[in-house]
Amino acid sequence: MSHEPSGLSPQFQRLVPEGDDRERRVCDHCGFIDYENPRIIVGSVAIWEDRVLLCRRAIEPRKGYWTLPAGFMERGETPDQGARREAWEEARANLETEQLLGVYSVQHIGHVQMIYRARLLTDAIAPGPESEEVGLFRFDDLPTDLAFPSVTWALEHYLETRDQTDFAPRSAPLPVVDAESAGL
Amino acid sequence: MSHEPSGLSPQFQRLVPEGDDRERRVCDHCGFIDYENPRIIVGSVAIWEDRVLLCRRAIEPRKGYWTLPAGFMERGETPDQGARREAWEEARANLETEQLLGVYSVQHIGHVQMIYRARLLTDAIAPGPESEEVGLFRFDDLPTDLAFPSVTWALEHYLETRDQTDFAPRSAPLPVVDAESAGL
Repeated sequence: MSHEPSGLSPQFQRLVPEGDDRERRVCDHCGFIDYENPRIIVGSVAIWEDRVLLCRRAIEPRKGYWTLPAGFMERGETPDQGARREAWEEARANLETEQLLGVYSVQHIGHVQMIYRARLLTDAIAPGPESEEVGLFRFDDLPTDLAFPSVTWALEHYLETRDQTDFAPRSAPLPVVDAESAGL
Repeated sequence: MSHEPSGLSPQFQRLVPEGDDRERRVCDHCGFIDYENPRIIVGSVAIWEDRVLLCRRAIEPRKGYWTLPAGFMERGETPDQGARREAWEEARANLETEQLLGVYSVQHIGHVQMIYRARLLTDAIAPGPESEEVGLFRFDDLPTDLAFPSVTWALEHYLETRDQTDFAPRSAPLPVVDAESAGL
């Protein structure tokens, strides 16, 4: 079933709902309270032999730039299931997730990224609808036009921990101040 | 500013919004799309000497049972900042977060719990509005009426890793099938 645009749109104002202790977006039309909780992005540094899977974005933001397969976690899945789904959707890749490599909090835009180390089960990959192109890259021959700082962090953290099996997930190296460029 | 109940309430039906690939809750009154993303719960196993901070819940669910200080992460904070805020709100406790101890996914209710190992900076604690009572407990003298399975997991995972500094965060031991009892 497809949603026909109705011409309706929510009209939010900021109010403190009864029993709450901070302002929330409350819709004037229907009273809906939008808590705007942080959203989880799940993704992977997915490896085939000594190469890493990257996807050239077919959509904004950062269309044409290279990124890791990643996207918003959905209800009903675990974070690692979400990372596998995203790899399929963006690169038709089948993978097995391993350690949690990084937890990158980008608080200005309310994102928490959970990036897994993963192993591709085959090298059969192909662009999904949100990718212009997908590829497997050696670490000494990565594209220079990466989409987001967090892509760089995750690749660096992968190299830092590639010989370890039991390690703490890495964090963002510095507070992210440029919200625009930090999303995945 | 307090929100006066207006008698309005959102009326949702499930539709696939244009350009999306799955059903979402869309409000009949205003067209608002509620993506129902998974929500992050942040909390801590907070230690003073050889004792752990627990809070007896003053609210449902599981009113009267003991839990870790934890709650929904808010926008504008990192997960560890959220864990510190919750410890203050629920137990007037000041703490320093250390390693990420567990990432517990409770997919049936769309929760991802991020529980930190933490060190209390003082033993001055007191119940906040959502706690009936707070206490510091030795691990050989824990209350038996714990609120949620994840409290048990986090306490076990703390004991398992207490002598380690670099370790992978633990997961839920088994798929959680009883959604009702699994929330924090």
